[in-house]
Amino acid sequence: MNRHLGILGGGQLGRMLALAAHPLGIRVSAVDPQADGPVAAVAEQITAAYDDREALARLAQADYATFEFENVPDAAVKQLEESLPVAPPPIALHTAQDRLREKRLFQKLDIVTTPYRDIVELSDLEQAFRELGKLVLKTRTLGYDGKGQVIVASETQISAAFQQMAGVPAIAEQWVPFEREVSIIIVRDRKGNFKSYPLTENLHRSGVLHRSIAPAPNATELEAQAIAAAHQLANALQYVGVLAVEFFVKEGQLIANEYAPRVHNSGHWTIEGAETSQFQNHIRAVCDLPLGSTKARGHSVMLNLLGSIPERETLLIEEGAHLHDYGKQERAGRKVGHVTVVSTTAEQSATIAARLEKLIHN
Amino acid sequence: MNRHLGILGGGQLGRMLALAAHPLGIRVSAVDPQADGPVAAVAEQITAAYDDREALARLAQADYATFEFENVPDAAVKQLEESLPVAPPPIALHTAQDRLREKRLFQKLDIVTTPYRDIVELSDLEQAFRELGKLVLKTRTLGYDGKGQVIVASETQISAAFQQMAGVPAIAEQWVPFEREVSIIIVRDRKGNFKSYPLTENLHRSGVLHRSIAPAPNATELEAQAIAAAHQLANALQYVGVLAVEFFVKEGQLIANEYAPRVHNSGHWTIEGAETSQFQNHIRAVCDLPLGSTKARGHSVMLNLLGSIPERETLLIEEGAHLHDYGKQERAGRKVGHVTVVSTTAEQSATIAARLEKLIHN
Repeated sequence: MNRHLGILGGGQLGRMLALAAHPLGIRVSAVDPQADGPVAAVAEQITAAYDDREALARLAQADYATFEFENVPDAAVKQLEESLPVAPPPIALHTAQDRLREKRLFQKLDIVTTPYRDIVELSDLEQAFRELGKLVLKTRTLGYDGKGQVIVASETQISAAFQQMAGVPAIAEQWVPFEREVSIIIVRDRKGNFKSYPLTENLHRSGVLHRSIAPAPNATELEAQAIAAAHQLANALQYVGVLAVEFFVKEGQLIANEYAPRVHNSGHWTIEGAETSQFQNHIRAVCDLPLGSTKARGHSVMLNLLGSIPERETLLIEEGAHLHDYGKQERAGRKVGHVTVVSTTAEQSATIAARLEKLIHN
Repeated sequence: MNRHLGILGGGQLGRMLALAAHPLGIRVSAVDPQADGPVAAVAEQITAAYDDREALARLAQADYATFEFENVPDAAVKQLEESLPVAPPPIALHTAQDRLREKRLFQKLDIVTTPYRDIVELSDLEQAFRELGKLVLKTRTLGYDGKGQVIVASETQISAAFQQMAGVPAIAEQWVPFEREVSIIIVRDRKGNFKSYPLTENLHRSGVLHRSIAPAPNATELEAQAIAAAHQLANALQYVGVLAVEFFVKEGQLIANEYAPRVHNSGHWTIEGAETSQFQNHIRAVCDLPLGSTKARGHSVMLNLLGSIPERETLLIEEGAHLHDYGKQERAGRKVGHVTVVSTTAEQSATIAARLEKLIHN
């Protein structure tokens, strides 16, 4: 009794999902508009727009469906839902697609989040700056990896920032001078069983994840709080699959930034660094199989590879270094792979990762 | 600078090699006569006989070539060698294809092996029985998983056993009343760098591997001897890739039974149970990349799944259980998958594996 999983999206997340699906005996088909996406080498790719009704009908022949990114058209999910179970639940997707809805959900659940204002006209932004001080103006929709964001640090920048949004719905979030950024990756199945990976500490560069350290050092209390918040969020959404919640840490307190209703870049270390990877656990949850252990195996550091992959020899010579090449054309700034170092001590992973960082030109 | 690996054979070993190749950015093509083999879902399959010159020419467009089983025709390897590096070296394959050559190599290297006799005519077998006592008559070539073997326990069985061989070249090996069976999996690269996985203890049923335990319990001294023998063998063969050597243990001493010039069923536990799997290390060696760490992560028990795969839910509910479905049609006695349990203690893996064994009907 084989299972067949349909995925909206065929990028690196789709590829790593497919690689995790095969050992479970689960066949994967993925819809992606870009021919020969990263998924194509390891699964069936249906090359078509995400709202192509014929392509979606083909995908709907699978037993279960999921998606690998947030900006899936509502209509596509609705069409799939008529034929087969879609997870994570569309409401989780719908909410994450709009920063305003996302913030309101955090507030409704009493999860501390950044103070923000809905920005419709210029006067809203002027008032927001008076009340919140330095802030980040963000498009409500379609933002990722720091795209669609402008910092407003002084009154003189307000007008230009507003114009840069070009009439697109936006929110203004108070600038948070955080000490660190962390994320929690959890997984919840259809019966409500819930497992959490160790808290991960993340470092971004120009809005893009650069490095993750897991388990996050000195974070026992923060981890418990992050798990509680994610659990509450997952239950409220009747969530199924892997969910990532990103937080700022300010004065030792968590401030929820955003959540991602999918496998997440800050969880890539779980492929080697945890007993079951986020990819396999997402598939287990979506395809109604029991969840696997989320315990860490040693100490991991994950480094993103942007633009190009350094000489494989120089990466792989390092003890405990594992390469993940996404099979993409190299292009400046593009996520083309990642490398994870796993060691028995945090110090050793940090030392090896520091050597690897010198080879990486992100 | 992507690499492309050609594999002779597209069974489960080819499939697991391909799954390990993708993260390294290595593309895989495999020749197999059986359409839609296990490899087809995860790599390019060229469906053709192993000695099909056109198919081999296509495979020879890769950068490196390897094979996933012993019974590759010599001519196929020769054709590939004209165009690209083939590893493991053909001499290792050639020797392993004939039990007589294999035994002679063990002897030449002073690696203790089972006493044996070359059997050409009936009188050879009669004499062998007088000299060696109870013995196993084996075809010199094409034997695997206990096939092509007959036990001769008394003088009255000699004639029938000889007739069963039907004139095929055979050897008679003294019956070894062993205490346990173990195997060592090593990997050697083109520069002669050498790494060894922990010794594995194996249990066979009807000549087919049923269960592996790694690291093998109470085996420090045996492990050192096994590594030394495998190292010597690998150096003598100028070996490149993963090599498995199987031993009987009798009165605490190792007796070499046979070697396999390829990734091996008794090394499947390394996917989750070691820092780098045998599959990835084989690819690293063959494709001239640095070898990865072969250290164990915890204690593993691997169980083969023959004939059919039990309900996935009942397998995956067990802590630390990892399923590998080869994507094969179910058929009595066929290797269709395996499950590996990894735990922090040998006791816990044994307890969980014992529960899993009750679900498995090999």
